Amino acid sequence: MTPRTPTTVDRPARGEASGTETESDRGDELARVDAWWRAANYLSVGQVFLLENPLLAEPLSHEHIKPRLLGHWGTVPGLTLTYAHLNRVIARERRELLFVAGPGHGAAGLNAAAWLEGTYSEYYPDVGQDVEGMRRLFRQFSFPGGVPSHASPHLPGSFHEGGELGYSLAHATGAAFDNPDLVVACVIGDGEAETGPLAASWHAPAFLHPERDGTVLPILHLNGYKIANPTLLARLPAPQLAELLRGHGWEPVEVAGDSAYAVHEAYAAALDECFALITQRRHPMIVLRTPKGWTGPDTLDGKPIEGNWRSHQVPLPAARHDPHQLAQLESWLRSYRPGELFDSSGAPAREIREANPSAELRMSAQPMAHGQVQRALRLPEIAEHAVDVPAPGRRYAESTRALGRYLRDVLALNADQRNMLLFAPDEHASNRLDAVFDVTGRRWLLPTRQGDDHLDARGRVIEVLSEHLCQGWLEGYLLTGRHGMFSSYEAFTHIVDSMVAQHAKWMHMAAEVPWRRPVPSLNYLLTSHVWRQDHNGASHQDPGFIDHILSKRPEVSRVYLPPDANCLLHVTEHCLRTNGLVNVIVAGKQPELQYLDLDAARAHTEQGLGIWEWASSDTESGTDVVIACAGDVPTQEALAAVQVLRGLVPDLRVRFVNVVDLTRLAAPQRHPHGISDREYSAIFTSDVPVIFAFHGYPWLIHELTYNRPGHEHMHVRGFGDKGTTTTPFDMCVLNEIDRFHLALAALERIPRMAGRLGHLRQHLLGELARHHDHIRRTGEDMLEVRAWTWGP
Amino acid sequence: MTPRTPTTVDRPARGEASGTETESDRGDELARVDAWWRAANYLSVGQVFLLENPLLAEPLSHEHIKPRLLGHWGTVPGLTLTYAHLNRVIARERRELLFVAGPGHGAAGLNAAAWLEGTYSEYYPDVGQDVEGMRRLFRQFSFPGGVPSHASPHLPGSFHEGGELGYSLAHATGAAFDNPDLVVACVIGDGEAETGPLAASWHAPAFLHPERDGTVLPILHLNGYKIANPTLLARLPAPQLAELLRGHGWEPVEVAGDSAYAVHEAYAAALDECFALITQRRHPMIVLRTPKGWTGPDTLDGKPIEGNWRSHQVPLPAARHDPHQLAQLESWLRSYRPGELFDSSGAPAREIREANPSAELRMSAQPMAHGQVQRALRLPEIAEHAVDVPAPGRRYAESTRALGRYLRDVLALNADQRNMLLFAPDEHASNRLDAVFDVTGRRWLLPTRQGDDHLDARGRVIEVLSEHLCQGWLEGYLLTGRHGMFSSYEAFTHIVDSMVAQHAKWMHMAAEVPWRRPVPSLNYLLTSHVWRQDHNGASHQDPGFIDHILSKRPEVSRVYLPPDANCLLHVTEHCLRTNGLVNVIVAGKQPELQYLDLDAARAHTEQGLGIWEWASSDTESGTDVVIACAGDVPTQEALAAVQVLRGLVPDLRVRFVNVVDLTRLAAPQRHPHGISDREYSAIFTSDVPVIFAFHGYPWLIHELTYNRPGHEHMHVRGFGDKGTTTTPFDMCVLNEIDRFHLALAALERIPRMAGRLGHLRQHLLGELARHHDHIRRTGEDMLEVRAWTWGP
Repeated sequence: MTPRTPTTVDRPARGEASGTETESDRGDELARVDAWWRAANYLSVGQVFLLENPLLAEPLSHEHIKPRLLGHWGTVPGLTLTYAHLNRVIARERRELLFVAGPGHGAAGLNAAAWLEGTYSEYYPDVGQDVEGMRRLFRQFSFPGGVPSHASPHLPGSFHEGGELGYSLAHATGAAFDNPDLVVACVIGDGEAETGPLAASWHAPAFLHPERDGTVLPILHLNGYKIANPTLLARLPAPQLAELLRGHGWEPVEVAGDSAYAVHEAYAAALDECFALITQRRHPMIVLRTPKGWTGPDTLDGKPIEGNWRSHQVPLPAARHDPHQLAQLESWLRSYRPGELFDSSGAPAREIREANPSAELRMSAQPMAHGQVQRALRLPEIAEHAVDVPAPGRRYAESTRALGRYLRDVLALNADQRNMLLFAPDEHASNRLDAVFDVTGRRWLLPTRQGDDHLDARGRVIEVLSEHLCQGWLEGYLLTGRHGMFSSYEAFTHIVDSMVAQHAKWMHMAAEVPWRRPVPSLNYLLTSHVWRQDHNGASHQDPGFIDHILSKRPEVSRVYLPPDANCLLHVTEHCLRTNGLVNVIVAGKQPELQYLDLDAARAHTEQGLGIWEWASSDTESGTDVVIACAGDVPTQEALAAVQVLRGLVPDLRVRFVNVVDLTRLAAPQRHPHGISDREYSAIFTSDVPVIFAFHGYPWLIHELTYNRPGHEHMHVRGFGDKGTTTTPFDMCVLNEIDRFHLALAALERIPRMAGRLGHLRQHLLGELARHHDHIRRTGEDMLEVRAWTWGP
Repeated sequence: MTPRTPTTVDRPARGEASGTETESDRGDELARVDAWWRAANYLSVGQVFLLENPLLAEPLSHEHIKPRLLGHWGTVPGLTLTYAHLNRVIARERRELLFVAGPGHGAAGLNAAAWLEGTYSEYYPDVGQDVEGMRRLFRQFSFPGGVPSHASPHLPGSFHEGGELGYSLAHATGAAFDNPDLVVACVIGDGEAETGPLAASWHAPAFLHPERDGTVLPILHLNGYKIANPTLLARLPAPQLAELLRGHGWEPVEVAGDSAYAVHEAYAAALDECFALITQRRHPMIVLRTPKGWTGPDTLDGKPIEGNWRSHQVPLPAARHDPHQLAQLESWLRSYRPGELFDSSGAPAREIREANPSAELRMSAQPMAHGQVQRALRLPEIAEHAVDVPAPGRRYAESTRALGRYLRDVLALNADQRNMLLFAPDEHASNRLDAVFDVTGRRWLLPTRQGDDHLDARGRVIEVLSEHLCQGWLEGYLLTGRHGMFSSYEAFTHIVDSMVAQHAKWMHMAAEVPWRRPVPSLNYLLTSHVWRQDHNGASHQDPGFIDHILSKRPEVSRVYLPPDANCLLHVTEHCLRTNGLVNVIVAGKQPELQYLDLDAARAHTEQGLGIWEWASSDTESGTDVVIACAGDVPTQEALAAVQVLRGLVPDLRVRFVNVVDLTRLAAPQRHPHGISDREYSAIFTSDVPVIFAFHGYPWLIHELTYNRPGHEHMHVRGFGDKGTTTTPFDMCVLNEIDRFHLALAALERIPRMAGRLGHLRQHLLGELARHHDHIRRTGEDMLEVRAWTWGP
């Protein structure tokens, strides 16, 4: 290989500068930026390739090269270039910035930045700013026992891993809410920009308040290629792309080129322009067009690398074994002129250190990214929101309406702290949480019209018909230390399955990083749930989100199914107090029977599950059957089934069990909330039939209890994906979770009922037929289904 | 209420027309359009409200009103208006159109359209075009035992339910691929337009070939509101919205107003302009601004309804009980002048019938929407693609590379039929399917540059970094009767969890509609799977998509885990032959050992699971332990575990079982592929320990087998969400699914090993430590991990 001409800046000699002091200063400044950039690139290449010889003190040889070459070089130079230029602005403007790397795959560049800023060595003292530290920085990257290839929690300054792609701009926007002095710089890869969530994220300006929120500065990095393809946005004609971005409310400023000096000039000028626009409360953004894998190898075996998709990952994949590639690598590394960048001890040279912002403004030390800035949520007493329950099952209430009043007071109590936001697609009112509009409105910065309902540029309720945005904005808000809740139609939370999986991974990995402070939990309220989507039909009926959550690590996953309003209040209060979890609460919005007063609800939800003595008829002499349930509609039907059973067989010994915290059912080795087998048997017995009426897919209960004593007696009824537009009771009947099917399932399994079973079955099937006929004839449930009350 | 002035067209008297014959003709034409629109709106309101008295033959009274009022009125008038105007164009241009209703919630309007066109009565003869038929049309809507509130499979002309929102434009685009003569008109609700998938869908022009594909005509219906909020796109200043749409490559033509006559004029002119542009191969679209709930009640109790979010669902919710609302309803219905629209028998008046297109061009009878147009896929012999396997476990191959050659030949064999497309985010080459580029390229209509790889405006491989678009386009392509496959990183298929759930629901509901023909299955290839995402780290490691698929109805859900290349070929061929299913194939792309020759692979995959005798050492005297596995990496480790075990304990009687079709494990009542308990016991025994090495989360195996004989002996190892950037073998060790952990798990459970267990455990832990040290020291797996071969 012919040694390639470095594409780094050729700083004009002083004498060449065109005269004024200012230009010369700018020249110095950009020379420092360029040196910093070269240093970051050098360190990035080192991380991908080198085991030893970090400063090239000796000629590079095969044994210096890692056996497995991992990492994504293609995106790195754009990330480091941007980081370097933002540092210039931070130093100049003394602004607080937070950095979001959409292409978190380029973590080598971000590790390098944190190391150059000294932060890395502060958090990891064994990776010091010296030769040995640099060696460790290189060696540990994507190495077993080392650090991951993405911008994971181990990385100072990161709160966004970027692994899945698509959520950077939403996270950046979430971080900006209620942070008026913050600028969130968000590098968006042009591959990532093809995703749906990112495409929707461009709508942020319609939701960011110019004074009360911070600024999001998107930097769309068009390096032109994905893994093997060009990217869409990079190939749109430039004026067309500008239209697209302006259409979303941004003012794009373009920086383009492949000559380092010209790009430095242009980038510096563009950022100065952006920050000037930011002070005018406008929404500038950068469109950055630089070659993929810039400053890397030009070609390999006659094929283009730099500026091509072939630079996506490791440009010289055989560097360990191929002498030609090894020589290319050495030449590449030396092209950054490491001798100018690091002193003989391996520490960054003075020029590099001068390009860093002051310690407290380093993006890699941004405390917001580490959850270190938090304002504790003040919680009101739930007593004043309790539903009055003089006796179980006598009175109706809409559980979410009670919760809405509680959330209203939470918002009011924290109004001056601005540390809580509520998110939903479009459904706070429809989900009966509209009491919150007594104290706040819906965030809306676009024009308003007469007839609009509670729109408010400062609103603390954020509604947008994108579950991706609700989720992404809330995640960004939480990850920067604030509080919130996402309420949604149950079926459509599957839209964010992959997002919550990534968030859960971040949470359990972050918990292992000592310098990160646990951030508030991600709280879901799934209402408009499967059993009451009778009016919307099959597409709206899917209870599987809780299955998905329980496939995540037990350290972070929690699922609650409060059966009534007071339990919902207790569960919600508990969830709002927690950190580091994903809490899913499933609770309907429709009028439903109330069972527990506030004290009983506290005891029950703290226990997480338990026998409801008042609904049970078993005695010391024994239990014929256990009727268990989880979820509000199943609880109602299970209680009605007990009533049906006791009406038919007055001496039947029925035990009634309700489960609020689903993970109590799991064995303790499966989930930290799991109860012991002894406790389990004390509740469920181990030798009589258990008929379990479950909110979700029935196998989830089997999955949680398969190794429990007496599991062979467990019979679960749940959602069998049988639904359409029909009545609420008919939804239960279709899935055989209604009172009559439950009662029949119990009777069929009680040995001493065998003799009477034919008669009893006939009666119950008759009841089902009576209801069926009524429903098909009138279109309504029979009054008794709703007017059912517990007790004598 | 004061009877309101109808907002319907006031047709100018002939004499008033401004002179030319043409204008008068246009007047007649638009009067017919308006009459048709009024009729459709009348029928829609009737469906929402009326049980009886469909033609208002008598004054409306309470008992004529449904007890539960369901349906979404707000979007209906825009849907019906668009349908009416498209009909005008169809009649005029004699073009074949397919109609996609993004706001499928407004199904009442679509039912009405199909009924007016006569199609509804053809498919449902009991719902004739007469008074009784109209009564049934009304009564059945959103009524128990009737038809759903959304555009579900029961609806002629629909292939898109619209329930979840966000996928209309992607479905429309998928339908347009390889349908050069088709125009797919796609109404997009402005709420739906806020979703991420829809936002990304605007990129369609970059993928539609002007001659070989059809035309997508988006109609963005800005009625201004969602459930309770304004919509983003409706409140963007109009020039800004136009920029946004032009930025995506569309030419927006705006139609706006709230005066029917003016809107009819404008809409007709706009559509004429669009179809003129379509003939020039350009990408026009309509931006339609009309009031939400147009022609409905103005106000209720002093609050605005028409043109406001309050018209979203049922505008007069108390019509059955409130005399004032009842009167409003009657006045509303009569404002459409039903006497002009229907004759005394209830049939549509002549003017309405004349507004219908000819029978074969009715959108409600479009055979493409019913899967009735299909070109069977020609499949090559797999024999010529078989990997040569002289003996089990001696030779390596990349399974997906063999598959790539097969898929290449599938594409070649069907090239002239144009009935197959392959989709992936950006990964056909990375997933080693690049043989397909021998015969086709990647679809790309934007500018190309030197260095691009296999871009082709006619390419049959479609790559876009949006799983939503891959999924949505493929769904649209399949639902209109064509074939395809979606290959993806395993972890990121969760991005489309909700989409596949909706598709699965559509498939099982469509199977119940006799006039729909089963459409080809949705085939996934999940490669780059959890066990070989060692280089990308935790964010890329999630095997839960198969859990999600198996929560869908068993009639449609299939999961295959072929252990090697020949099994992968057989499974894929099988899947490509099926209709109406969701087939998920999980198979890695890395070099891996091959076990079965083509015949053995055929037998094994047809059986779905079985004992591998050549790997077993149990005898007629009995079995000490069953080592079972599913998935390619688990198969390799399980076989290695058998080797370890037999090395340590030569007389150990081990049975080896491999599972390809996961649903074979389920009981027959849970899944149609489930084997009987007798067959299950013959394979797994019922009284000895089973150590199951599973590709996914371990509880899925328990969920499938909890009620199988001997389940208490089942011990499953799978992915425990423990991963990072490390080596492939270390990934197995972290999750204790490696050969040594498996061997230990077996020995611990074999009673006769108890005496030797201490020694054996020490040996195995020593082996683990040896590997651990090597990996941490060198960054690589020990050579023996990969070089392992089966046999003597």
